[in-house]
Amino acid sequence: MKPPARSIARRAFLRRAAVLSGSTLAGGGSRALAAETGHPPDVPEWSRTLGAPVLAHPYGEPSPFEHNVKRRESPGLTRTAHSSVAFTPLQDLFGIITPSGLHFERHHAGVPQIDPHRHRLMVHGMVESPRVFTMDDLLRYPAVSRIHFIECGANTGMEWANVAVPTVQYTHGMIGCSEWTGVLLSTILDDLGVDPKARYVLAEGADAASLTRTVPMYMAMDDVMVVYGQNGEMLRPEQGYPLRLLVPGVQGVSSVKWLRRLEVGDAPWNTREESLHYVDLMPDGIHRQYTWIHEAKSVITLPSGGQFILDRGYHEIQGLAWSGRGKVERVDVSVDGGRNWRTARLQEPVLTKALTRFRIDWRWDGGPALLQSRVIDETDFVQPSIRQLREVRGTRSIYHNNAIQTWRVDPSGEVSNVQVL
Amino acid sequence: MKPPARSIARRAFLRRAAVLSGSTLAGGGSRALAAETGHPPDVPEWSRTLGAPVLAHPYGEPSPFEHNVKRRESPGLTRTAHSSVAFTPLQDLFGIITPSGLHFERHHAGVPQIDPHRHRLMVHGMVESPRVFTMDDLLRYPAVSRIHFIECGANTGMEWANVAVPTVQYTHGMIGCSEWTGVLLSTILDDLGVDPKARYVLAEGADAASLTRTVPMYMAMDDVMVVYGQNGEMLRPEQGYPLRLLVPGVQGVSSVKWLRRLEVGDAPWNTREESLHYVDLMPDGIHRQYTWIHEAKSVITLPSGGQFILDRGYHEIQGLAWSGRGKVERVDVSVDGGRNWRTARLQEPVLTKALTRFRIDWRWDGGPALLQSRVIDETDFVQPSIRQLREVRGTRSIYHNNAIQTWRVDPSGEVSNVQVL
Repeated sequence: MKPPARSIARRAFLRRAAVLSGSTLAGGGSRALAAETGHPPDVPEWSRTLGAPVLAHPYGEPSPFEHNVKRRESPGLTRTAHSSVAFTPLQDLFGIITPSGLHFERHHAGVPQIDPHRHRLMVHGMVESPRVFTMDDLLRYPAVSRIHFIECGANTGMEWANVAVPTVQYTHGMIGCSEWTGVLLSTILDDLGVDPKARYVLAEGADAASLTRTVPMYMAMDDVMVVYGQNGEMLRPEQGYPLRLLVPGVQGVSSVKWLRRLEVGDAPWNTREESLHYVDLMPDGIHRQYTWIHEAKSVITLPSGGQFILDRGYHEIQGLAWSGRGKVERVDVSVDGGRNWRTARLQEPVLTKALTRFRIDWRWDGGPALLQSRVIDETDFVQPSIRQLREVRGTRSIYHNNAIQTWRVDPSGEVSNVQVL
Repeated sequence: MKPPARSIARRAFLRRAAVLSGSTLAGGGSRALAAETGHPPDVPEWSRTLGAPVLAHPYGEPSPFEHNVKRRESPGLTRTAHSSVAFTPLQDLFGIITPSGLHFERHHAGVPQIDPHRHRLMVHGMVESPRVFTMDDLLRYPAVSRIHFIECGANTGMEWANVAVPTVQYTHGMIGCSEWTGVLLSTILDDLGVDPKARYVLAEGADAASLTRTVPMYMAMDDVMVVYGQNGEMLRPEQGYPLRLLVPGVQGVSSVKWLRRLEVGDAPWNTREESLHYVDLMPDGIHRQYTWIHEAKSVITLPSGGQFILDRGYHEIQGLAWSGRGKVERVDVSVDGGRNWRTARLQEPVLTKALTRFRIDWRWDGGPALLQSRVIDETDFVQPSIRQLREVRGTRSIYHNNAIQTWRVDPSGEVSNVQVL
């Protein structure tokens, strides 16, 4: 069911349809047309027999025919499956909402199974009234629902080294976009009373990794949320059930999952996950720390690496664009490796710090092509080429690769991952 | 995990927190606080051991602690489970996106399991170039993604007879809201060429019921979609996999699932499901037919029937509002059975023909209360009371009940379904 892998040409169908007489169609119906189109004239079995009753699945599942649409691990990328990554199949998705069952996973000590009745959130430090919250306490606060992306800081990391992993699932699949519901952290902090000298908040997870990250107060009092809902229901275990932080626009590790503690202080904590990891090693040997905001980024998902275009002629190129600074302003698409650019259509609603789907018409002439997308966000930031990124950041980075992605279309129709320098 | 069933009072927590010294908190941390709050000081097991590895679920599932959040059948409502209804648990949901696994089901001959490679859509009748489409053909067209609700015409039908079913899952749970992806029907019809005299389209399902419905051309050429995607992935089987019609704002039966045929014609078809069913029997004995647009409607989901409010004091009342005519303009909420009204906050983005979540602050004083919501849409239509509806429609209606819903709050905190006439 991958859109580009089509075995029947659209124009062939148009020709075939044109030879059919209108009267045959109006009279004989599907049987006549079925004969014309070469598949058996029999009515399919699902039109002749009762289907499954209601509540065959009180909680529904995808069709068995979609079993290949799933999260995948990159073999050899990590040493254990408890501190690993499973990537979202971006090539198979539509719209901007990532199905919760396909939202990428990234854990440091596996997925804890937390009893929400026993789970607690402690908020302490430089606050007037420190407090331990139950889940019910938090559900009592005024809530907000917002659609935001979460992207791992290491997303597209393998491309720094020109590994050219084969599919968009592996190049860009550490991203998801959900409708998150919870309480603004500012609501909680205002309720407890924050010391005017406080400048940072430490967030800690309840998993065995006790993952900790520093969040600056200006973010905490802006759009940071304490989240319990994802796409209409309670968080999925892999995304932090029953409680997580959400720091919109910031690398995923800051949106601490299984949130159990928030400490308010006046200096950053320099914890393990913000001093040894999630830092950028610059050409002069200096580590850039707390480089947390995702700059504007985009990628074409259709067609993309590993897919085949079987027909010449019309295709709709589709992709995703996003920015940690706000809204997507414009996306340009090139089919010749960046020499010429055309502006794509943006799917409404375009929301701040959310995935935005873009689409543009393309007629493939059967020749080689180099497909690229380039996003410009509302701050006028322009997504850079990998060459531009390397000029500034050198060659030893792991994180924060937001370079323009190139897919090569071969005259055979094969689409593959290449770097255009 | 139902929000209103809270066993620990928020103010009790605030008092307890106030007696704790700041230094104890900063030093001893969670152990000291844990002792104060009465649960065991031990670190929970999920913070001491590795959790589940990635890809424990390549396609994710909710936490086992959420097993009670599921679709439910109303006992005795239908004679067979193949022509029945399973309702969405609106009382447990957040935001506006309905999780696909919880989207209500309504089938006439069960859920067919359709092989997408064998599925075909025939478009014929008053078109220049009739055609049979494969799924791949349809995926090749320019796509759109839009967030719309689907509501069964019989939703809230039992309330016509003052049955007062106990929960909002049963009163209003035949509604869902998803991000749908597919092709505008106008794109397909424009491509095939429509006879200028054509005024209607017949849609037919591939299930054993061969369900058929007439759609007027002015809708077909406006926002009707041929849909294959739901909330980012392929349609779920219960919602029409691999293909359905979507007629935004119109009763769900018109959004024919498992779509296999579209016939263009110049008169409505008067099929079984639009002459014997889905009609309104008026007081004068006349059946109103083709009353398909959902007028504006709203309901409070939190708190709602079957829930208990355990604490006095602050509560956020939440609910959902929608209109088949466009956007929700305003929602007013009453806590005294309609004598006084206050305007609720609307969660952005407010989208056309989509669910809109509203929220309003409320302090429960422990006395009896009658909670109601009343929506006004952008056409200035005001949601009616059940008395106003009955004055026009009499007492023999089954469909299209968009009356104001009343929940009674008892001094014990019990919330129940009552009719205020």
